[in-house]
Amino acid sequence: MKRPAVDVCFTPQEIRPVEVAVVVDVLRASSTIVQALAVGYPRVVCCESVATARELRAPGRVLAGETACVRVPDFELGNSPAAMASAGRRGEELVLATTNGSPAVVAASRSAKRVLIGSLLNLSAVLAALPTDAGVAIVCSGTNGRPALEDAYLAGRLVAALGGVPSDAARVAERVASGYRTPLEALAASEDAAQLRATGQERDIAWCAREAVVEVVPEVRFSEDGASVVSPARELHRGLPMKAAEEFA
Amino acid sequence: MKRPAVDVCFTPQEIRPVEVAVVVDVLRASSTIVQALAVGYPRVVCCESVATARELRAPGRVLAGETACVRVPDFELGNSPAAMASAGRRGEELVLATTNGSPAVVAASRSAKRVLIGSLLNLSAVLAALPTDAGVAIVCSGTNGRPALEDAYLAGRLVAALGGVPSDAARVAERVASGYRTPLEALAASEDAAQLRATGQERDIAWCAREAVVEVVPEVRFSEDGASVVSPARELHRGLPMKAAEEFA
Repeated sequence: MKRPAVDVCFTPQEIRPVEVAVVVDVLRASSTIVQALAVGYPRVVCCESVATARELRAPGRVLAGETACVRVPDFELGNSPAAMASAGRRGEELVLATTNGSPAVVAASRSAKRVLIGSLLNLSAVLAALPTDAGVAIVCSGTNGRPALEDAYLAGRLVAALGGVPSDAARVAERVASGYRTPLEALAASEDAAQLRATGQERDIAWCAREAVVEVVPEVRFSEDGASVVSPARELHRGLPMKAAEEFA
Repeated sequence: MKRPAVDVCFTPQEIRPVEVAVVVDVLRASSTIVQALAVGYPRVVCCESVATARELRAPGRVLAGETACVRVPDFELGNSPAAMASAGRRGEELVLATTNGSPAVVAASRSAKRVLIGSLLNLSAVLAALPTDAGVAIVCSGTNGRPALEDAYLAGRLVAALGGVPSDAARVAERVASGYRTPLEALAASEDAAQLRATGQERDIAWCAREAVVEVVPEVRFSEDGASVVSPARELHRGLPMKAAEEFA
């Protein structure tokens, strides 16, 4: 069956109704969400603001996030996937508030029937999880309402691998992906990478540029009051005994 | 002197305050505006809507424009640069209302100190007219609020030629430009080209893909009531006797 339309939104403002959205924020929120599930958090609560995350503070919940690329002072963790891997699971749920990525997840949940979360880290797993018979939009989180190079790069990688009928924006992204020899080359050239270097967090650039090293695909389960609850997509648990699969749902 | 920031807006919604904006709508409004000045219209009045153009109807004014890619029934001309070249000048002013390009000119005029209009037809002339000491944003008109491939291509050509400090969006556009061997290849792959073929206007695709064949640079002189008045930029008249230059002002 021929895959339907494949579209790319360079910023969350461009989102329109679609069957499946893949939200990407390569530097760094979508990489952090993927890494959080990989270290064992069963759920990540993506918040549209730091204030929303603070309201959700409770025992068993670990607050993480940044403003202006730096950890929110009263939060336990920042938005670093490398630090997330080092810290490991520290509670029942991660509550994440970032400038661009976590609000993009909440925004996409308002327009798409299903919302998956993609990064270079889980590139192959996301591609395997996408249905072949549904329209797909790659939603780039961007930076402060503007396109981000690293998100356009990943969007182009997804478009190139998906096939289907690309929109003009999808063709634009595809040319970005084919215009860099490696993921690291694209990420390192971005404005967000410059900001990470300026704040002493350059380790995350190479960390987020690693391709297909994690099998988990985060999916939004439900959204309310400016927050979206994310857990691993069911697709990955095909073949598991039903009971084990249910535990992930 | 090093040129300051060079940015690209993939849709007019992304425009932010900037010193110089270059509005592009390769298929077809910016090509039509360039062609209109080239055949001798001293001014083109770019309208934000068909209704605005109708209100400006008056002797000496030629109404042109489209909705859904097709000529507005009560307008004398459509939005075809090829047809504009054949028809020649038919009045004192061309009043143009299109779906994306002419509203983008009006929108850019609200955010930029100077607004020039670019197309492949006048590519070299636009580059020569841009000041080297001012921030520049290439404003793509896009299609119904979404990015258009042909506009991203031209934006990338301009970014590559300008030098300066590119934003992430400018880097994205640059990769689009370097991803196609010829302008025609990029234009022909676009959704707008498909729409032109579907409405029997494919002649405009190759017409608009011709590079640097016209020397005129349209510039917005003033805007009011949802319309922007465009005439040739002064830069082109350097070296002319003062009186001749004044006639263009």
